[in-house]
Amino acid sequence: MQTIVLGSAAGGGVPQWNCRCPVCSLAWAGDPRVRPRTQSGLAVSRDGEAWLLVNASPDIRQQIAATPVLHPRSGLRHSPIQAVLLTNGDIDHVAGLFTLRENQRFDLFATAEILGAIAANRVFDVVNPACVARREVQLEATFEPLPGLRATLFPVPGKVPLWLEGADPVIGMVGESTVGVMFEADGRRIAYVPGCARISDDLRQRVDGVDALLFDGTVLEDDDLIRAGVGVKTGWRMGHVPINGANGSIAKLADCHIGQRVFVHINNTNPILVDHSAERRQVEETGWTVAYDGLTLHFATSANLVKGNPE
Amino acid sequence: MQTIVLGSAAGGGVPQWNCRCPVCSLAWAGDPRVRPRTQSGLAVSRDGEAWLLVNASPDIRQQIAATPVLHPRSGLRHSPIQAVLLTNGDIDHVAGLFTLRENQRFDLFATAEILGAIAANRVFDVVNPACVARREVQLEATFEPLPGLRATLFPVPGKVPLWLEGADPVIGMVGESTVGVMFEADGRRIAYVPGCARISDDLRQRVDGVDALLFDGTVLEDDDLIRAGVGVKTGWRMGHVPINGANGSIAKLADCHIGQRVFVHINNTNPILVDHSAERRQVEETGWTVAYDGLTLHFATSANLVKGNPE
Repeated sequence: MQTIVLGSAAGGGVPQWNCRCPVCSLAWAGDPRVRPRTQSGLAVSRDGEAWLLVNASPDIRQQIAATPVLHPRSGLRHSPIQAVLLTNGDIDHVAGLFTLRENQRFDLFATAEILGAIAANRVFDVVNPACVARREVQLEATFEPLPGLRATLFPVPGKVPLWLEGADPVIGMVGESTVGVMFEADGRRIAYVPGCARISDDLRQRVDGVDALLFDGTVLEDDDLIRAGVGVKTGWRMGHVPINGANGSIAKLADCHIGQRVFVHINNTNPILVDHSAERRQVEETGWTVAYDGLTLHFATSANLVKGNPE
Repeated sequence: MQTIVLGSAAGGGVPQWNCRCPVCSLAWAGDPRVRPRTQSGLAVSRDGEAWLLVNASPDIRQQIAATPVLHPRSGLRHSPIQAVLLTNGDIDHVAGLFTLRENQRFDLFATAEILGAIAANRVFDVVNPACVARREVQLEATFEPLPGLRATLFPVPGKVPLWLEGADPVIGMVGESTVGVMFEADGRRIAYVPGCARISDDLRQRVDGVDALLFDGTVLEDDDLIRAGVGVKTGWRMGHVPINGANGSIAKLADCHIGQRVFVHINNTNPILVDHSAERRQVEETGWTVAYDGLTLHFATSANLVKGNPE
């Protein structure tokens, strides 16, 4: 099983079009300490031939161009991208669907709630339903988005997308709005949770023992945006648990057995994006990796599944 | 007045994510004869400080990054982009709105029909109407999207966007679905017409005498896509007049007085995208320029407006 982080930033990317927070300012200036990062997305494959995209960011065209295994390979029209799976309806996870048009066949997997939000907006019909099957997935029901690649959606504390929020949205709700995905193939397990408002006991149990966890690194502290002066919302209000603090992801997941811990979906205001910064070092000292675009994890078949080969 | 071609390709860009037509194949291979091109968009400014985007392509984040005058300049949040004008509702002209979020103020100008299509899809509310005023523009009514920059929308033969097509869409209709824009400032006039199904006498009269015309170069011949084997639609069916032929844009506009003639919105199947190709040479020999991303036209104040300065 392979995963490629196509986009490691949260909505807006790094730099964000209208932002001059300290991290974006370095990025605009071309400072080598801040790599530009595109918006959140992951590619997953069992065999390196057929690929699943988890979420479709607005930057998907640029991400495909930067990723040779996702280029078309044969004939006049082709794509190794055979399926797309959505973990929520946030615009930075669905707007890339508008690029995946041109009558190319693939399967679009999501919960009923997320598919419903898409169906209610006719503009998504540019992804022609006659070519792109919209496949409703039940929580906790394992399915195969690609042959031999098993996936299970599980609910995590979250919220509805910003564009569907009412006057007083419920934060931290557990349901079909925001999900994580557990991938399994050849004895390996990888969990992908790009958005999560709180580390629940359920989540801790689920990710215990995985080969890799790619997890929501949107904010370092709950008040990142407020302190940076660019917004009034806390991480909680946006549906994102902080990295630091007693209830943060580092502390709350410290006791879990996890092969590789990787922060993804990192907001442009987060100082861990600056190479060599104190905040980056502190995070790395706890065993976490800060993802960048193109970060690839490659898992061979689990050793304890290899039989008849004592060497 | 300045214009920058932010994106010179039609929908899908060059290369298109799932295409291996001859032009895209060269682009995927990194052949220097085919520059990668992003999807259709233009930036216009009178003073080089405040900018108007004409259409917002899915590639707008990448286009802003590549265009220093569009980077934020001051404070924590800022953008020189003060207005966006839509010439139709095609996905390659509106999906970039999903990137222009984050509570940044600007004015969104379009006809009532195009604004109606947007209003009917709640997902466009990510561009918060509380920050982004949606301003309805009447055909033929001159307005100022930026101070001192005058714009007039005029109808051209076209069709509704693909995602709003019914079973048997009318092609070549003249109304609010597809418009051209005439810009005027400091005695200069520039016409931008990225989509046009047919060269009407009205269009020929309008563009006669302009300093520059940036015009629909989607297809070289009406059957480009069919000959390339990648589609079944003619240029006409897609709402695009061919470049060549007795009714093509080169022939039909040959008698007009036009300072600079530039093809934009060029589909990936169009062989004029290949540098040094016979097709490119033939087009250039008629006085037309094939646009590339970043092509900048700069017009000083019209000489016949400069008074009291005989030198």
